[in-house]
Amino acid sequence: MLRASVQKSLRQTYKLSTRFSSSVAAQYFPEEPISPQLVTSSIPGPKSQAYNDELGNVFDNRATYFVVDYVKSLGNYISDADGNKLLDVYCQIASIPLGYNNPALIEAAKSDDMLYALIDRPALACFPSTNYAQILQEGILAAAPPSMTKVWTALSGSDANETAYKAAFMYQHAHKRGSLDFTSEELSSVMNNEAPGASDMVILSFDRGFHGRLFGSLSTTRSKAIHKLDIPAFPWPKAPFPSLKYPLQDFIKENHDEEIGCLQEFERIIVEDYEPHKIAAIIVEPVQSEGGDNHASSFFFQGLRDITLKHDILMIVDEVQTGVAASGKFWAHEHWNLTTPPDMVTFSKKFQAAGFYFSNPELQPNQPYRQFNTWCGDPSKAIIARSIYQEITKHNLVEKTAQVGDYLYDGLKQIINKYPGKVLNLRGEKYGTFIAWDCYDAEVRNNILLECRKRGVNIGACGDVAIRLRPTLTFEAKHADILLQVLEDSFKAV
Amino acid sequence: MLRASVQKSLRQTYKLSTRFSSSVAAQYFPEEPISPQLVTSSIPGPKSQAYNDELGNVFDNRATYFVVDYVKSLGNYISDADGNKLLDVYCQIASIPLGYNNPALIEAAKSDDMLYALIDRPALACFPSTNYAQILQEGILAAAPPSMTKVWTALSGSDANETAYKAAFMYQHAHKRGSLDFTSEELSSVMNNEAPGASDMVILSFDRGFHGRLFGSLSTTRSKAIHKLDIPAFPWPKAPFPSLKYPLQDFIKENHDEEIGCLQEFERIIVEDYEPHKIAAIIVEPVQSEGGDNHASSFFFQGLRDITLKHDILMIVDEVQTGVAASGKFWAHEHWNLTTPPDMVTFSKKFQAAGFYFSNPELQPNQPYRQFNTWCGDPSKAIIARSIYQEITKHNLVEKTAQVGDYLYDGLKQIINKYPGKVLNLRGEKYGTFIAWDCYDAEVRNNILLECRKRGVNIGACGDVAIRLRPTLTFEAKHADILLQVLEDSFKAV
Repeated sequence: MLRASVQKSLRQTYKLSTRFSSSVAAQYFPEEPISPQLVTSSIPGPKSQAYNDELGNVFDNRATYFVVDYVKSLGNYISDADGNKLLDVYCQIASIPLGYNNPALIEAAKSDDMLYALIDRPALACFPSTNYAQILQEGILAAAPPSMTKVWTALSGSDANETAYKAAFMYQHAHKRGSLDFTSEELSSVMNNEAPGASDMVILSFDRGFHGRLFGSLSTTRSKAIHKLDIPAFPWPKAPFPSLKYPLQDFIKENHDEEIGCLQEFERIIVEDYEPHKIAAIIVEPVQSEGGDNHASSFFFQGLRDITLKHDILMIVDEVQTGVAASGKFWAHEHWNLTTPPDMVTFSKKFQAAGFYFSNPELQPNQPYRQFNTWCGDPSKAIIARSIYQEITKHNLVEKTAQVGDYLYDGLKQIINKYPGKVLNLRGEKYGTFIAWDCYDAEVRNNILLECRKRGVNIGACGDVAIRLRPTLTFEAKHADILLQVLEDSFKAV
Repeated sequence: MLRASVQKSLRQTYKLSTRFSSSVAAQYFPEEPISPQLVTSSIPGPKSQAYNDELGNVFDNRATYFVVDYVKSLGNYISDADGNKLLDVYCQIASIPLGYNNPALIEAAKSDDMLYALIDRPALACFPSTNYAQILQEGILAAAPPSMTKVWTALSGSDANETAYKAAFMYQHAHKRGSLDFTSEELSSVMNNEAPGASDMVILSFDRGFHGRLFGSLSTTRSKAIHKLDIPAFPWPKAPFPSLKYPLQDFIKENHDEEIGCLQEFERIIVEDYEPHKIAAIIVEPVQSEGGDNHASSFFFQGLRDITLKHDILMIVDEVQTGVAASGKFWAHEHWNLTTPPDMVTFSKKFQAAGFYFSNPELQPNQPYRQFNTWCGDPSKAIIARSIYQEITKHNLVEKTAQVGDYLYDGLKQIINKYPGKVLNLRGEKYGTFIAWDCYDAEVRNNILLECRKRGVNIGACGDVAIRLRPTLTFEAKHADILLQVLEDSFKAV
C-alpha cells in the first residue's frame, strides 16, 4: 500500500478529496459500503451456485462469475446472491457508467418518458415519437464528439459498428456511381449475393482489435481465435497495430519506429494489396480493449487519418468501450487532436444506448429504407443515455475521472515496480481510469484475478495476459485506495 | 360494407361479441375511441411535419409516415402529433402485441424488476441477476414452442437470426471435428478470416425471404434489392419458395405441383450444388412477410423438414414476424404439425424481446464465450415479454385472434370479390389476423394505402404489390367492422 505521506502528497497534487469528505459518490450513495464485505468463504457462494444451476437449465451459464443481487448492489459495490459486496472495477464489462442504483437513473427509469418508451416501443424510422428529437438532442447528441451532428441509433456495439460499415459501403458506392442509377445487372446480381450488386469492397481493421461478434463485425474482430472459429468471415484485411514498450519514456525511439512501421505497412496494404477504392473504411479503437488494452500515440492515429484521407478511405473510430468519460476525455479520440475528425464514431456500453455519430450528410444513404430495420434503436435506452450525459456534465465527471485516474496510475506505478517478475507494462497514464497492465503469463494473471476476488474486488481481464480497470465514473480516491491495497496484497500472494 | 344480415350470421358463426358488449379491448381500454378521429385535412398534418423536420436535423427521417403522440394513443388507435386517431393495423411493423398503453404493460414497466433491469443493466452471461431464470421461465420459456427447452436471448430479429446461424455453424463443425481439438491451422487461419478456421459452410434461405439487415442475416434476405445493394454478402444459396395461386381451392393440383417442384429443386441444390455437410442450416419463415405475405402448405414445410433431416442440415424457423399469437397459433409453425420439430425457432417483434429457442444441448457451443457478447439480451425486454405472454394466456388471445381473423377473412372475401380488377389473391384463411392480398400493381396498392389513411386507418404494405394486416392481439370484431368499411371505400375510391 502507498505510504501515508505519498498518499497525502498525491491527493494534494490531484486536488482529490480525502476519504471522508464529501464526494459525488457520497452524494449519490450515502449508504455505499466503505469497504468490501465478504460473508462466504469463497465466491461464488452457495446461493450464487444454486441460482446459477437453475439458470443453466434454460440459458448458457458457463461464463457466470457469480449471480448478482442488483437490488442490494450500490454505487461501486456489486452484491452477489450470498450477500458478498465487492468493489467492482469490471462493471458489467465496462458498461456501468454511474454506479449501481444511481438515483438519477432511478428517476429516469420512473419518468413518464420511460414508461411510454417501454410500453409503446416505436418503429423509430417510420413512427417516431414527438419527443425523440428532443431526447436525442438533450442526451446522445449533446454528448457528440466535436463536429458530429447526426446519429443513427442501434442496439449494441456490434450493431452500431455494422450499421457504420453499411453506411461506409453505401457512401463509397454512391461516389463511384455518381449520378447514375443502379444498373439492371446490379439489381439482379445482388439477389444472388453476387457482384456487382453485392459489394466487393472491404473494411480494414487492426491486428488484436475487437469490434463485435455478428458476421460483419466479427470479420473485423482480430483479438482471439475462440471468438471467430467455425464462423464464416468476409475476406477483409487487417493491418498491424503498434506494440509499444513500457515504460514509454524509456522506449521513445523504439516506439516511434514501431508506429512508423505500422503506418508504412498500413499504406502498403492500401496501395499494393488493393485496387484504389476497394477499401471502404477502416475501423480502429482508441485503446484496443478486449485485445489487451493496447495503446498507440496520437502520432499514430493522426497518421492513420492522413493516410485514409489521401486514399479516400473512411475512418470509423470504435468508441464502444472507450467512450463516455472514462478515458480522461468524454470520447477517447479527443486525446488525438486530429486535424480532420473521423468520419464516424460508434458507441454503446457505458451509454447504454448504441449507434454511430457522423456529420457528412452523404453518410445517410441516398434513399430511405437502405439503412433501416424495425426498431432503429430504442428510446428507453436513449432516455437513460440522456440522464447519463446530464449527470456527467453536472458533476464534472470527465475531469474527476481524469483526476482519480492519475491518482490511481501513480499509486499503481509504485506498487507494480515492486513486483517486476509478476506484473509489468503499466499503461494508461493520463488516460483517466482506463488503466491496464500485463502479468507474467496467463496463469499469474488468472491467479491475481482470483486473489482480488477473495479480497472483495471484482476485476476483469483482457488480451492474453492483461488486467484492465473499468470502474464507474463515480470511482474516487477512497475506492482507489482500497483497490491499490487489494492489488498489492494480491500481487504479493501469487 | 357487409350487409347487416351477413355480419350477424358471421358473428354467430364465430361466436363473436357484438360491438358494445364486453370485450378484452374494452376491459383494457375503456376509453378506446369507437372509430377513427380525423382533425387535419391530411396526414401527416402540420404538427407532425414540424416535429419531423426537427427530427431530420439529427436523424434519418425520410421513412416517417407521421410523428406519433404515444401518450394519446390507446389500444388499437394510434394518435399522431396533430391529434388524429387512426385505427392501427400496421402496429410498428407488426410489433405491438397488446395495444398502445396496455395497463398490464404499464404495471410491468412500473415494477421493481423493471427498475433494476433498467438502471443496472447486466452482462447476462457473466453476472446474471438472481431473478433472470425466473423471468425467462415465467415468460419467454413458458411460451416456448413444443419441445423447446432453452433460449439464447438477443436484441433484435436480425441479431436473433445471426446468433442462430452461429449456433448452427459451430454445431456442424463440432460434428465434423468429433472429439478432436481445434488444429493449429484452424487457429491461425481464422485470424486472417480464412478457412479452415473460418467456416466455408453456408446458410440456405428462400427466394423472397426476409431475415434481417446485418451482414449475415442480410445475406439470407432475398425480398428486395434495395435492402441489399452495395453491401457485401456471403455467397450463400437460395431455393425457390412456392408461388401459390388463389383461391386455393381452385388450384389444388397446380399448387401441389408447385410445392413439389420447389422441394425437388431444394433437394437438387443440396445434392448437386454442394458437397455433403456444406449447408449448415436452412432458415424459413412460416409466412414470408416482408417479401409479400407468401404462404405455403404444411405439406411443403414437412417436406423441407424431411429433406433437412435426410441431409443432416439444421432447420431454423424464423418467427420474428409470425410469432406470438397473431397467426391462429402462438407460433405459426405449430400449424404444420411437423413429425420432428425444427432445430431452432427465432423470435422478436411482438415479444419485444428477441432470441432463439432450441432443445438440443449441442446447439450450445462446446465452450463458453463462443456464443457471447456484452449484454446477451436485455432483462427489461424479457420482463415485458413475460407480461405479454401472461396476458395472452389469461385472456385466451390466441383463440380470440383466430376467431376475429376468421371473421375478418370472410368479410374481406366478400369485399375483394367485388373489385377483381383492383385487389386479388386474398390469403391467410384460418391464419388468425395474418391476412394479406395483392393489388393490381404497386400504384394501385399505394393509392389504397393512402385512401385508408385518409379514412383513419394506418395500414402497411409488403412485397411488390401486397397489403398485409398486422393488428394487435386486442383487435376485435368492432375494429374489424371499421376496417372492412374503410377497405371497401378505399377499393372503390382508387
